[in-house]
Amino acid sequence: MRNLSLLTDLYELSMANGFHHDLPQTNATFDLFYRRVPDNGSFVIAAGLQQVVEALQDFHFTNSDLDYFRQLNLWDESFLAMLANFKLTCQIKALPEGTPVFPREPLLTITGPLEQAQLLETLVLNIVNHQSLIATKARRLSYAAAGRPIMEFGARRAQGPDSALYGTRAAIIGGANSTSNVLAAKLFDIPVAGTMAHSWIEAFPDELTAFRKWAEQYPDNSALLVDTYDVLNSGIPNAVTVFKELRAAGHEPVGIRIDSGDVTTLSQAARTQLDAAGFPNAKITISNALDEHIITSLLHEGAPIDNFGIGEKLITSASAPVLSGVYKLAATESNGQSTPKIKVSASREKLTIPGDKQVYRLYEPGTQRAFADLIALATETIVDATSLTVVNSDPLSVDRQQRLTHFEARPLLAPVDLSNTTSIPVTTIQATTQAKLAELPRTTQRLVNPDLYPVYMTTTLSQLQTSLLNKMTILAD
Amino acid sequence: MRNLSLLTDLYELSMANGFHHDLPQTNATFDLFYRRVPDNGSFVIAAGLQQVVEALQDFHFTNSDLDYFRQLNLWDESFLAMLANFKLTCQIKALPEGTPVFPREPLLTITGPLEQAQLLETLVLNIVNHQSLIATKARRLSYAAAGRPIMEFGARRAQGPDSALYGTRAAIIGGANSTSNVLAAKLFDIPVAGTMAHSWIEAFPDELTAFRKWAEQYPDNSALLVDTYDVLNSGIPNAVTVFKELRAAGHEPVGIRIDSGDVTTLSQAARTQLDAAGFPNAKITISNALDEHIITSLLHEGAPIDNFGIGEKLITSASAPVLSGVYKLAATESNGQSTPKIKVSASREKLTIPGDKQVYRLYEPGTQRAFADLIALATETIVDATSLTVVNSDPLSVDRQQRLTHFEARPLLAPVDLSNTTSIPVTTIQATTQAKLAELPRTTQRLVNPDLYPVYMTTTLSQLQTSLLNKMTILAD
Repeated sequence: MRNLSLLTDLYELSMANGFHHDLPQTNATFDLFYRRVPDNGSFVIAAGLQQVVEALQDFHFTNSDLDYFRQLNLWDESFLAMLANFKLTCQIKALPEGTPVFPREPLLTITGPLEQAQLLETLVLNIVNHQSLIATKARRLSYAAAGRPIMEFGARRAQGPDSALYGTRAAIIGGANSTSNVLAAKLFDIPVAGTMAHSWIEAFPDELTAFRKWAEQYPDNSALLVDTYDVLNSGIPNAVTVFKELRAAGHEPVGIRIDSGDVTTLSQAARTQLDAAGFPNAKITISNALDEHIITSLLHEGAPIDNFGIGEKLITSASAPVLSGVYKLAATESNGQSTPKIKVSASREKLTIPGDKQVYRLYEPGTQRAFADLIALATETIVDATSLTVVNSDPLSVDRQQRLTHFEARPLLAPVDLSNTTSIPVTTIQATTQAKLAELPRTTQRLVNPDLYPVYMTTTLSQLQTSLLNKMTILAD
Repeated sequence: MRNLSLLTDLYELSMANGFHHDLPQTNATFDLFYRRVPDNGSFVIAAGLQQVVEALQDFHFTNSDLDYFRQLNLWDESFLAMLANFKLTCQIKALPEGTPVFPREPLLTITGPLEQAQLLETLVLNIVNHQSLIATKARRLSYAAAGRPIMEFGARRAQGPDSALYGTRAAIIGGANSTSNVLAAKLFDIPVAGTMAHSWIEAFPDELTAFRKWAEQYPDNSALLVDTYDVLNSGIPNAVTVFKELRAAGHEPVGIRIDSGDVTTLSQAARTQLDAAGFPNAKITISNALDEHIITSLLHEGAPIDNFGIGEKLITSASAPVLSGVYKLAATESNGQSTPKIKVSASREKLTIPGDKQVYRLYEPGTQRAFADLIALATETIVDATSLTVVNSDPLSVDRQQRLTHFEARPLLAPVDLSNTTSIPVTTIQATTQAKLAELPRTTQRLVNPDLYPVYMTTTLSQLQTSLLNKMTILAD
């Protein structure tokens, strides 16, 4: 990853300069969380932590950056000297990548000098918002495909090179099985996939010649694109001819890909033709502007599809292309005195949760069955309990108080070691995602109208929020 | 820009390997074009050419890439040796960045050895699709703002670092006036903008203290964020107090920013309060999830807004987050013999236009008033004409033939010099965009239901397309 320290909004630097001068001995804790789930799902898959760590390990400003700052003529030399010798002393806590995370839960917190913690906002949000968005979409597609492999094919429609590269990483975390993106495959050790484009077919005098030439080059890797001219009257018959030639030469064909037309009709007819010709194991891959709802519908119709290739709808999360994660001040601390903070707003939905916090996933005792999450102050001790009164964390909820009985509470936020330069393989993170998804109720994983998964606060935290809110309301009057 | 040669789909390399062996002496021309305009507009603003040029100037494969290819075990050493010593010999033609471009018009063409031209597809599409998408969205926002400045604020919600960096570049090309993104501002010499976040206000004991501290740091750059607690009862009164103190000290305040609530109500009341307090020149900036339709509606209601700050809706083109540009084989050439190519499809809309082509913008003689575009074969001579029969290029159009009289035809595609290492400043490109927009009918620039701008083909080109289509249909039967 390049040095991305300058990838920040101007105001972060302006505020950091102000804090440097006005609140130099103040520490702060910021929470990264989101309020709404893309596509009306009930959770997000957290992703991007590894790239946050790499960006923070390399966080520095070059002489060229400092020259540029001097040109802007906004900040003084004392602040620029601090930037020139920047030494990150913040502590990061985060959920492991691949963890399903619910609205209002901090998925990453940064504690440290106010001037530093403020400076990291834009960069950290950019990385986490992007990768978590794509991991979340991949989870949805993977759920829809119900065990059939998903291939990520979106590089050409991504929002720039990083959107393709890190989007692919996130897609694998969320459940995609392979990618066509060679750079992502190489850097993140992801299985790489792909067949041919229509241009291959068109470059030769006819389709049969093009298929034969492909089979000569890739006798054990022959997935043929059959929709350049006419799937059923030309593509499949020509593919069958070449498959027979391959088999005669001792090679088993891989299958076919269809990229246009009515996918159910074509895949059913293709299956029939391939089976009749003696190729029941030839796979059918579909890659025609698919999303999770089209996949659900195709499988519901019984379309005999073996693999799904997903382009722009995955790599941009096209139906919901933004995860609106925010980075909010939760507390400041100076002279050993901690002051919890909230942001009030005209919209009650936007009320933040104050203080340095921990998030717990609550399980039925002795099982891996989670039934709710609980946000507590980091200073509270949450033990496995037989009875605990909690409050719904949603500021719009009506019936807020609830009594929980018999649960095991397991903390989700863990310190991140910024000195660690090894990274977890992406396919290992994908296994984490699958394991953590398996803990959640199936009804909350549904793509449409998922059941609500409760996220509670402790009564201590709730009372703190209420008391701060009342104080703010008085201040504003 | 990093070496992005590996940012490609696997099949590009697999096809290039096949072409290397099977069609080694063949040249090809590929067209980059799109079929549908995002947001139901009538045109796209072409952008990204500079980054394409930089990527192609640096197009090479490292030893590490070649080691990875050997691991994949798909291609032979003769092909890998070609990659190891890759020397790009393709010729590029393109529209200047900032040019409005209509569906089906090639906005970039690549001609050269088939194995090379195929290899560039994914990378070139990724860059051009992304930047053209964002430039197109910025044009829409700028049109809606009707002369008021647009500030790009989206870095935290972009789809990864490049989406923020190059998206900002594209936003400026399309009409945004400044950015909060420091990296983009530095690299592309863009005016940089920004005030403070809510965390600044919250870090101090109260809002008035926070405003005062800001004014001390930035006495000539004090735009105050007034919605942390209550815009009208706290934010504006406190801002006015500080503005008076600033003025007493010889500084004129910049204005206020509102980031939540009902923007029309708040901006009107804020204007009244600021005017009454003696600050009629204090600017009101709004930055609350704005898009082109909300801006249109706010201005239609008479909201007194001076500046618009646009976040996620611009940097991701959230309402239409994909430009579906494609890269299609238009012709091959070997032994001096050129063979035009088309792609047929189950969907007639997807029919391509064959041959090596030029695009002309047609003007009323002696004016800068464009009224239509014309696609011709590169070998045709289009002179300013008193009469020319043309054919609608839309394969779905019914009444296709038309006679044009009295026009001047000016070519749009020009050769790109890959040896040129200087770049056009982004603000200069923005001026190009404005000039070229001014040439188009106002009715085709409308945001909703824009009038159709005709894109014709010459009869020669149309006849070539029809004859190839008939041949393909026979082949497929």
